[in-house]
Amino acid sequence: MLVDVLTIVGVGLIGGSIGLAARRRGVARQVRGVGRNLATLEKARDLGAVDDIGTEWTRMLPDSEMVVFCTPVDRIAENVLAAAPFCSPGTLLTDAGSTKSKILDDVESRLPGHVRFVGSHPLAGSEKRGPEHARADLFEGRWTVVTPTLRTDPRMLQKTKGFWEALGCRVQVMSPEAHDRALACTSHLPHLVAAALAGSLPSEHRELCATGFRDSTRIAAGDVGLWQAIFRHNRDALLESLHAFEDHLARFRLALEAGDWKTLDHLLTQAKKVRDALGN
Amino acid sequence: MLVDVLTIVGVGLIGGSIGLAARRRGVARQVRGVGRNLATLEKARDLGAVDDIGTEWTRMLPDSEMVVFCTPVDRIAENVLAAAPFCSPGTLLTDAGSTKSKILDDVESRLPGHVRFVGSHPLAGSEKRGPEHARADLFEGRWTVVTPTLRTDPRMLQKTKGFWEALGCRVQVMSPEAHDRALACTSHLPHLVAAALAGSLPSEHRELCATGFRDSTRIAAGDVGLWQAIFRHNRDALLESLHAFEDHLARFRLALEAGDWKTLDHLLTQAKKVRDALGN
Repeated sequence: MLVDVLTIVGVGLIGGSIGLAARRRGVARQVRGVGRNLATLEKARDLGAVDDIGTEWTRMLPDSEMVVFCTPVDRIAENVLAAAPFCSPGTLLTDAGSTKSKILDDVESRLPGHVRFVGSHPLAGSEKRGPEHARADLFEGRWTVVTPTLRTDPRMLQKTKGFWEALGCRVQVMSPEAHDRALACTSHLPHLVAAALAGSLPSEHRELCATGFRDSTRIAAGDVGLWQAIFRHNRDALLESLHAFEDHLARFRLALEAGDWKTLDHLLTQAKKVRDALGN
Repeated sequence: MLVDVLTIVGVGLIGGSIGLAARRRGVARQVRGVGRNLATLEKARDLGAVDDIGTEWTRMLPDSEMVVFCTPVDRIAENVLAAAPFCSPGTLLTDAGSTKSKILDDVESRLPGHVRFVGSHPLAGSEKRGPEHARADLFEGRWTVVTPTLRTDPRMLQKTKGFWEALGCRVQVMSPEAHDRALACTSHLPHLVAAALAGSLPSEHRELCATGFRDSTRIAAGDVGLWQAIFRHNRDALLESLHAFEDHLARFRLALEAGDWKTLDHLLTQAKKVRDALGN
């Protein structure tokens, strides 16, 4: 038992999976779900993701030992700041947002001194939404990045790491900025490229899309609002990785245009090596 | 029973799957495998994909009613032309190549008059190779494109369609040129983009690649030689779809650079609609 009362704000795919994993693994004595939408909260409770649900900070927060914010990235900072006054001294707040620098900047400049915030990002999820897609094993073997700053309390950093490890994750610690640069390459750029690929498909050819097209554009089915917010938060790092991608793509185009098959072979071979190294 | 003796030239993933499907569905009385590599042929026979194997045209072809060429696209035309003199009058030759115009051009100008060739392309496969990955259900519900030209014998076109339907495919008929333009968009461009995405990943970020990156780059693990040959064959159509993709990607970049979130929302929404319409 790591935590007495664990409160999850936002019980969708990620929040619901945290609840399922925490309950199955005995990570908390009690797991609570807080949100704005009572129907979603009831669904999460009925699926066994949380023990207790509520929409009011006043009732749900005062005796929580740890609060995890799983709302969309553009709502995390405001949720944290709105919740903090209702939390008891020493409460650990963390999040599951896909971007880190902007959230940390917004939170740390205004957070009341009696609580602590440590930024987290579990690299798990899918293009689906809602507690009905939550899974107790969503985090097993996945990376969670925890992003301390100069203001982070070392004990709270340890507790945050221990929490994600208890849910089944492996943990990497890096700065919010390093996190955002890495995720721009490994997650935000692929989403943008998949969307551009899906969006540039002439409609008359849709029927002839097979497995390759489906795989390579799957993430483009993700929620538009969530991704728009991620792109806004991480615009600079995303643009940097997009420029690098466009330059690399142009190397393929130039080789094709020139009929330079040796270069094309080299480019395809290097890409295959990278992909083979990732495994399934 | 549609065919008496069916001969498959090249018993890898596609050829092996044709054999497994033809035998399971009773499409041919006998299924033969022909190739250069005896070890691969033996593996295909041991897996139940073919009844009989051999490396010599002279023994395998004279009493074949239908021959399907499943070699890499850059070898299909030469294989067809080399095999034709050993075939009996009226033999139907077809293929499973991912490009069609170049193969049809090369074959039709030099094919002896006693046999018939009809171009085909079953839209099935994966990034894997070899008969050990063959599956009897690979073609179920998948599209096969059959590409007649002005020289195509209408009865042989019907027989080719019937063959793929008997293996479980749905069949579309279109010109070789229309096929190549469509597949440039739905298959060849996605491969090139996936390769550029995998190839532009900074190596220090590999560990932080999650499901999205894996899905969107999976096809980049495909065989380099096979894809290089496809790109060579279909260079013009591929370049056309690549230019359209680069233009569309630039719209995403410009919206990001300008902070034009309304346009970005529109682009993401349109992409999601296309991807949602494709299903899983």
